[in-house]
Amino acid sequence: MSANLNETLICGHPLEEYEAMIEKFHGNRAPGLIIGGFMVDLAQKNLPKGELFDVICESMKCLPDAVQVLTPCSIGNGWLKILKIGRFACTFFDKHTGDGVRVYLDTDKMKNYPEIYNWFFKVTPKHEQDGEALMRQIRSAGAAILSVEKVKVDPEISKKEKGSKIAVCPVCNEGYPAKHGEKCRICSGEINYLMKSS
Amino acid sequence: MSANLNETLICGHPLEEYEAMIEKFHGNRAPGLIIGGFMVDLAQKNLPKGELFDVICESMKCLPDAVQVLTPCSIGNGWLKILKIGRFACTFFDKHTGDGVRVYLDTDKMKNYPEIYNWFFKVTPKHEQDGEALMRQIRSAGAAILSVEKVKVDPEISKKEKGSKIAVCPVCNEGYPAKHGEKCRICSGEINYLMKSS
Repeated sequence: MSANLNETLICGHPLEEYEAMIEKFHGNRAPGLIIGGFMVDLAQKNLPKGELFDVICESMKCLPDAVQVLTPCSIGNGWLKILKIGRFACTFFDKHTGDGVRVYLDTDKMKNYPEIYNWFFKVTPKHEQDGEALMRQIRSAGAAILSVEKVKVDPEISKKEKGSKIAVCPVCNEGYPAKHGEKCRICSGEINYLMKSS
Repeated sequence: MSANLNETLICGHPLEEYEAMIEKFHGNRAPGLIIGGFMVDLAQKNLPKGELFDVICESMKCLPDAVQVLTPCSIGNGWLKILKIGRFACTFFDKHTGDGVRVYLDTDKMKNYPEIYNWFFKVTPKHEQDGEALMRQIRSAGAAILSVEKVKVDPEISKKEKGSKIAVCPVCNEGYPAKHGEKCRICSGEINYLMKSS
């Protein structure tokens, strides 16, 4: 257990400051996001300084927000991608060479931290969890529950999708990528999420 | 054209302040993100005050970052979802009732703004574009190139995916959602993005 929690830094931010940042961006201090901060910090410590990296998150939950708060990568600028793999891990890589590091939650190392283990594997029902004890253990464990490995990312992943011509859909009259076909994906029925009201 | 650009507010932020916020988060003042700010602002003006809304973006590009910077919705907390429809539009809705508003770039209204029209439909080759003229026209057009419609979102969209039990993958030894099968999606070969190096 660390004796100097006050000195814990997440990508240069004192831990308390990082927690306030994620509360503002994400809405609350989710346990997964505190761990996510240690993951981004560990990845950066294992990467060449001053270079730009793209990120792939293997989980939709929480983790992408740690990346968006701590790095220049966002879902809207395309430097962050999310793959629905469901492992609690993220990969930082050079998009030109594919070289990078992957940081993941290590199930063996987690065994030394019962609160974290029981939370992650849902051993303790949610209403019986001691949230404060969990947060204390996450803060003191820091990177001790993580492992890092060198990886090479498939160059296909970072190939930028070619920009398409923009057409006007003959049904809805909105702009859409011409490569999708003669109508946009809503008007062709390929995707639907709306029940239009009057 | 608005004579009072200095007084333009985006969700309560002076326009210049909003542009600085997106530059910090997104890396640059992308034209699509300035328009995105006016879209989020217009959506909020058409929603009941003080209620929480989920958001669906119909485009991966830029727009999600306007939502993440201006609202409590993020990709990591799940209140923002992205559907690859490719229309420049977003829908704000009450996840319990499905009632909401959809804001979209109106191709007819855009015809009054040639710089914006030529940029959006890629009429002018990128190297011939006058970036400053485009930005001036976006700032002065504001919400005049947008339209808003009442919509009802399919309740299936907001149904939360049931949390899965977490299993340890017998191949990689990492945690993954047990409902994915006997191995995680990487070890089963369902998804791949890595070429592991030594």
